[in-house]
Amino acid sequence: MSAATASKQECIKNCQECQTTCADQLTSHCLVEGGEHVQQEHVQRMLDCIAACKACIDFMSRNSEYHALYCKACAEVCKACADSCEQVGDMDQCVACCRKCVQSCSAMAA
Amino acid sequence: MSAATASKQECIKNCQECQTTCADQLTSHCLVEGGEHVQQEHVQRMLDCIAACKACIDFMSRNSEYHALYCKACAEVCKACADSCEQVGDMDQCVACCRKCVQSCSAMAA
Amino acid sequence: MSAATASKQECIKNCQECQTTCADQLTSHCLVEGGEHVQQEHVQRMLDCIAACKACIDFMSRNSEYHALYCKACAEVCKACADSCEQVGDMDQCVACCRKCVQSCSAMAA
Amino acid sequence: MSAATASKQECIKNCQECQTTCADQLTSHCLVEGGEHVQQEHVQRMLDCIAACKACIDFMSRNSEYHALYCKACAEVCKACADSCEQVGDMDQCVACCRKCVQSCSAMAA
Repeated sequence: MSAATASKQECIKNCQECQTTCADQLTSHCLVEGGEHVQQEHVQRMLDCIAACKACIDFMSRNSEYHALYCKACAEVCKACADSCEQVGDMDQCVACCRKCVQSCSAMAA
Repeated sequence: MSAATASKQECIKNCQECQTTCADQLTSHCLVEGGEHVQQEHVQRMLDCIAACKACIDFMSRNSEYHALYCKACAEVCKACADSCEQVGDMDQCVACCRKCVQSCSAMAA
Repeated sequence: MSAATASKQECIKNCQECQTTCADQLTSHCLVEGGEHVQQEHVQRMLDCIAACKACIDFMSRNSEYHALYCKACAEVCKACADSCEQVGDMDQCVACCRKCVQSCSAMAA
Repeated sequence: MSAATASKQECIKNCQECQTTCADQLTSHCLVEGGEHVQQEHVQRMLDCIAACKACIDFMSRNSEYHALYCKACAEVCKACADSCEQVGDMDQCVACCRKCVQSCSAMAA
């Protein structure tokens, strides 16, 4: 039987959506648009977000006792990514999935 | 606009399900059951499968030109994991998601 | 010019050694020995340690502003892995590299 | 006793150096310089290279039977990254570690 609860499954799903959406948008949108979209800080936030989601999915899916550390970090990193995406503009998809990720990761970390 | 096609999205979803199902089953089922479930070869196949899916998701979601290499490898690794799970027994969930992953990764690698 | 300082480079090196040593020992020693070496809790600690080191290397090498979160988490996870390895016994190599990792990650997180 | 041979250890070391050097250069050099350094294709090659090295390190350090698949893919991806770095220019460190990685990964994949 699975050790994963409903809220963990939801959080994993949100992190997966956030990881793949940001990876897709970074490479098919930001790197094509250039300008503000490839500023050091913005790309760093996108890469941080993708990496934070991956680590979070990994610890949650392995039913690790330490998943809360990675959910908490992920919430902080995704919040910064959402803010950067809002500032750059034209990145609504990323903003939405980052905000969703912040909510569920914060709940899992509590 | 997203560069991901329908079949790629489907393959990413199957790899995500395979990664998290195998990670959950390894830690909440195999490590609890012991015996055949923790034999070196079986655990190796499970860890290979989880890692192969992660790499595959990463290359596909970043719209990498090289994703086919990782889809092809993932198909081979997940096939071996499905076979190991069948031999050990009592791992139907893993067998099912690994077989699904083999199919979509093979299609993406073609 | 590289943004990496001497202490970060040292910490990356220690995490790399910890990741690969624990991955090697888990698969070539624990899974072969069986018994205490494949108890759920011990294998979980080993997998946590490997994953924590990977995330930590990733955030440090990308010069992320958020690396301290991952260094702090890595120190906690590696401490637990070192303790588990000591309790199981016959895992001196892992104990040594985990303890080294705890020290440098704690310093980087401060 | 470790299952890792001398040549595998050497290849792991080269992949680790390549991963962290490219991650550092992408974030502290390319994203600062802009222009050619943030062209879609170049950044994609850098991200591919970093991801390929990570997967390769993972499969080798876990003594996986499937490591050759990931070494072969890594050799191909790192060759493309080296070529892109040469074309962009002012990226000698990346070119050097990518070329070294191609050599050892090709040898491991044979």
